Amino acid sequence: MAQYARYVGPNGIIHTGRVQHGKLQDIPGDPEILDLLNGPADVRRDLDVRAGRQQKLPIQDATFAVPVQPRAMRDFLVFEAHIAGMKKNEPGDGSVPPQWYEAPAFLFMNPWSVLPTGADIPMPPFTQKLDFELEVAMIVKHTVRDVPIEEAAEHIAGFCIFNDWSARDIQGNEMRIGLGPSKGKDFANTLGPWLTTPDELEQYREDDRYALEMSVAINGEVVGTDNLRNMSWSFEEMLVHASRDAWVGAGDVLATGTASTGALSERWARSGQLTPPPLQVGDVVTMTVEGLGTIENRIVETASPGHTVPPARRTYGPDRL
Amino acid sequence: MAQYARYVGPNGIIHTGRVQHGKLQDIPGDPEILDLLNGPADVRRDLDVRAGRQQKLPIQDATFAVPVQPRAMRDFLVFEAHIAGMKKNEPGDGSVPPQWYEAPAFLFMNPWSVLPTGADIPMPPFTQKLDFELEVAMIVKHTVRDVPIEEAAEHIAGFCIFNDWSARDIQGNEMRIGLGPSKGKDFANTLGPWLTTPDELEQYREDDRYALEMSVAINGEVVGTDNLRNMSWSFEEMLVHASRDAWVGAGDVLATGTASTGALSERWARSGQLTPPPLQVGDVVTMTVEGLGTIENRIVETASPGHTVPPARRTYGPDRL
Repeated sequence: MAQYARYVGPNGIIHTGRVQHGKLQDIPGDPEILDLLNGPADVRRDLDVRAGRQQKLPIQDATFAVPVQPRAMRDFLVFEAHIAGMKKNEPGDGSVPPQWYEAPAFLFMNPWSVLPTGADIPMPPFTQKLDFELEVAMIVKHTVRDVPIEEAAEHIAGFCIFNDWSARDIQGNEMRIGLGPSKGKDFANTLGPWLTTPDELEQYREDDRYALEMSVAINGEVVGTDNLRNMSWSFEEMLVHASRDAWVGAGDVLATGTASTGALSERWARSGQLTPPPLQVGDVVTMTVEGLGTIENRIVETASPGHTVPPARRTYGPDRL
Repeated sequence: MAQYARYVGPNGIIHTGRVQHGKLQDIPGDPEILDLLNGPADVRRDLDVRAGRQQKLPIQDATFAVPVQPRAMRDFLVFEAHIAGMKKNEPGDGSVPPQWYEAPAFLFMNPWSVLPTGADIPMPPFTQKLDFELEVAMIVKHTVRDVPIEEAAEHIAGFCIFNDWSARDIQGNEMRIGLGPSKGKDFANTLGPWLTTPDELEQYREDDRYALEMSVAINGEVVGTDNLRNMSWSFEEMLVHASRDAWVGAGDVLATGTASTGALSERWARSGQLTPPPLQVGDVVTMTVEGLGTIENRIVETASPGHTVPPARRTYGPDRL
């Protein structure tokens, strides 16, 4: 297997490429990555060989596209140190709720907001606290339901780096309502730079975890690091849980949630201070995960006119019920 | 315009039909409903005329399919009396949080779990508190971003009844973690029975709301009623808010959230008693909304083996950070 990318050719057509030694080799026919992985092994081997004979594009010269277009994106919260840090600045006694330890909770995200590495991220309107989240995303290989743990690995197509951009002030307001975030997290997610198949990561495997160093930098300065082995549930366990009595689709994204120190908000919650400060226009956020590559995006000026709606019309009074 | 349904023919093929006088008229070519609505008006009128010449199927004899397959489903919470009732049994002082009044919050749902009227709903594993939610869903007509209020109506394809099935005990546990529900709401949603275009509802229009009577019955006994005019935000406002700095796709579902008394859990929260009791295997839940039709589903035996995962592996200690 290999690392496969989608990238934009000079004519605007999306190509599929194999990543080899820092270069992209175009795969004839430019199949979707999941079609390639789900097709016959001998066809893929033949295409890999033919790709090796093509002209090679250095990855630093490539304009990447998103490796897969998920229909559903589930974002988990499997790093204990991250939730422990965040809870220090939320209502409650500051401890991790006991329910967190029982099963790997997740939320669904906006599948229309997936962006590739290299894309500009417009500053969302109405936020003064733009932040990132350093995560790893598993890409699901087949549409499945009720997956038992011993079969989970065969349904994993591969892994990408995932950045769940978050407007913390908007998110914080929304979470007081009780249903989780909505506009605080629906505007952008970075998925990339390419898909790495599980066998490429065998050298990092420890039991059912991958020991991959993770880091995030702002304008080249590292501000957070963790290791993927610190997941409190494995990717296989995340798929078992998500698929219990529910369909999980081919191409769906199941992301880990934020690694510890993988978001500014965790630092803010631990220290009570806005240090490092929220992201500003012009900032470049770079995330690197061992074995998976690097994703990088720049914050640019707000692109939205920021249409608002009036507050709730009152429809409820003691006379109604 | 009209009411359009998707239904299953005797050969297993999904047909598209126009609903007229309690009967389905097959539309030649069986286009997707959104393709029909987004195509030229004269083509649609011609197809409507030709549909009228086809053999007619009484709707009670039809096996319905889902009218549209959304990529993203957003569920709002726009009925003040419902949230006011629910908060009586949640942590806090029992009042509606002030943040709720500021903007129409929503959460994303599992797009793979949409089921048509008539489908059996298997009892989810591990719940003793299966419940329903009486809602109306708006179907988005075009893929849009940053929609201003004066243009919102033109991007609404139509409306369906929506039942957001919910396992309240699972949901309640998950919501203590702070990110909203996950397994408590990812297993089933009913969307149907068909799509009703906005012009069909003009007679019910009051300012920017629709005055449609809504009701839900268990085994034929009405247990909840409300009126769609009690939305605290309009459908147009929901679309403005959802599309602010984010893509909303053609075919996406934007649902109102539960009407007041449109879920058993609201009654449980108000009374402190499990009356009426949670849904049981064999129960039939029927929802009717004036102008939109009726959806009905039966609860059947659990179909999932209920695979579980171990509790969190501890990875966080005072030595780590």
